[in-house]
Amino acid sequence: MREVTAYNWVPDFAQGFVKDLRVRWALEEAGLTYTERLIDHEQKLQPEHMARQPFAQVPVYKDDGVEMFESAAIVLHIAQGSDALMPKDAAARARVTSWCFAALNSIEPYVMNVTGTQLFHADAPWAEGYLASARGMLDMRLNQLSGWLKGQDYLEAGRFTAADLLMASVLRELERDGTLGHFPELEAYCQQCLSRPAFRRALEAQLAVFAKAEVPAGV
Amino acid sequence: MREVTAYNWVPDFAQGFVKDLRVRWALEEAGLTYTERLIDHEQKLQPEHMARQPFAQVPVYKDDGVEMFESAAIVLHIAQGSDALMPKDAAARARVTSWCFAALNSIEPYVMNVTGTQLFHADAPWAEGYLASARGMLDMRLNQLSGWLKGQDYLEAGRFTAADLLMASVLRELERDGTLGHFPELEAYCQQCLSRPAFRRALEAQLAVFAKAEVPAGV
Ligand SMILES: N[C@@H](CCC(=O)N[C@@H](CS)C(=O)NCC(=O)O)C(=O)O
Ligand SMILES: N[C@@H](CCC(=O)N[C@@H](CS)C(=O)NCC(=O)O)C(=O)O
Repeated sequence: MREVTAYNWVPDFAQGFVKDLRVRWALEEAGLTYTERLIDHEQKLQPEHMARQPFAQVPVYKDDGVEMFESAAIVLHIAQGSDALMPKDAAARARVTSWCFAALNSIEPYVMNVTGTQLFHADAPWAEGYLASARGMLDMRLNQLSGWLKGQDYLEAGRFTAADLLMASVLRELERDGTLGHFPELEAYCQQCLSRPAFRRALEAQLAVFAKAEVPAGV
Repeated sequence: MREVTAYNWVPDFAQGFVKDLRVRWALEEAGLTYTERLIDHEQKLQPEHMARQPFAQVPVYKDDGVEMFESAAIVLHIAQGSDALMPKDAAARARVTSWCFAALNSIEPYVMNVTGTQLFHADAPWAEGYLASARGMLDMRLNQLSGWLKGQDYLEAGRFTAADLLMASVLRELERDGTLGHFPELEAYCQQCLSRPAFRRALEAQLAVFAKAEVPAGV
């Protein structure tokens, strides 16, 4: 038994970007089936859900052994049981773990500062000045990442791993406003990860839920 | 052999807060000795260091089996080999991993947005407006975390784990401007973690390096 908690509907801008996608992708790479547990934006605030996800978010993941939250922790858990996402060698596994945290702590926060401001605060009086500063930090990180990837197709171990799954999931947020286009190596890296059949299947599975959904009243 | 790469000197505001502290703390909890490899702020930018830490930062960690970066990945690696930082039960270990990522991805980015603006952009024309918004997001996350901790001393498994080590390391950044004082449960939780002898030893070890350092020319 494997179960992924996701939303039954999200606004257009979030469709295809909700973070259960990372978990679905990892499960597809590992060749594991799962069921969906769909909740709405009132249920996410209820004590029952917050006992499973303390920040009122998705995803939550459950299998016969564990119940977990945080997309990257879940992806790492699935990866630890699957040769498709992790090398066997202990030193290489440790480096993959380093890069999983790098994606979530050294890249994603800077991505979110830019994309979150564009999406939710574009008209704030502070947005323009702040965005210039946040873009500077993001560009620095992307240059460093690009430097690391020079001459190699994947972050570690010469092969696709859980770290690439997470990094590409973070980077694709920057395709929308054209930022990634300024970093051709990163764009090529990201596209190579996203062209994997397992990613396409995961994306279709998330979008299929929304295609069937009724837009909630009041939206 | 265990080696932690750290700075030989940092400015006053950073002393006691450089992220090798988390690794030193984990090693102290686990009862493991280590040597220091000290670098300066020119060395951090050299190819030799960036091959070990792609973002020109510290810490880097090395033992007989692995070479790793990202403080949380290193703490988790040390924890996986130590009963002092991890429960034995697989389900509980998975939840500790969830909370390690939560500390780094659901709390730290919001902390850094506030403290980073205060430290580095206090006079920017956008700072006041942006800070009000960033404080709103941070307060929401701190309230959710406080809700989770209600009635329990530690994040998971009824005991101190690697997740508490990381969460307290993140929260103590908020002691300086008084933010944590508005969340009495979180302040008590943080203080309880920081009162551990292993934390005091780790902090002293980091500060001892700076006490011996010469302030670099031009600072
Ligand atoms: N750090 C979390 C973040 C999860 C997250 O951002 N979830 C979003 C959807 S992509 C959500 O549920 N947002 C609703 C909310 O914050 O109220 C993870 O990686 O799992
Ligand atoms: N995500 C990294 C962040 C490490 C980090 O922020 N290191 C700081 C010191 S606390 C640093 O080396 N800063 C120097 C720089 O960024 O140039 C980790 O957790 O290890």
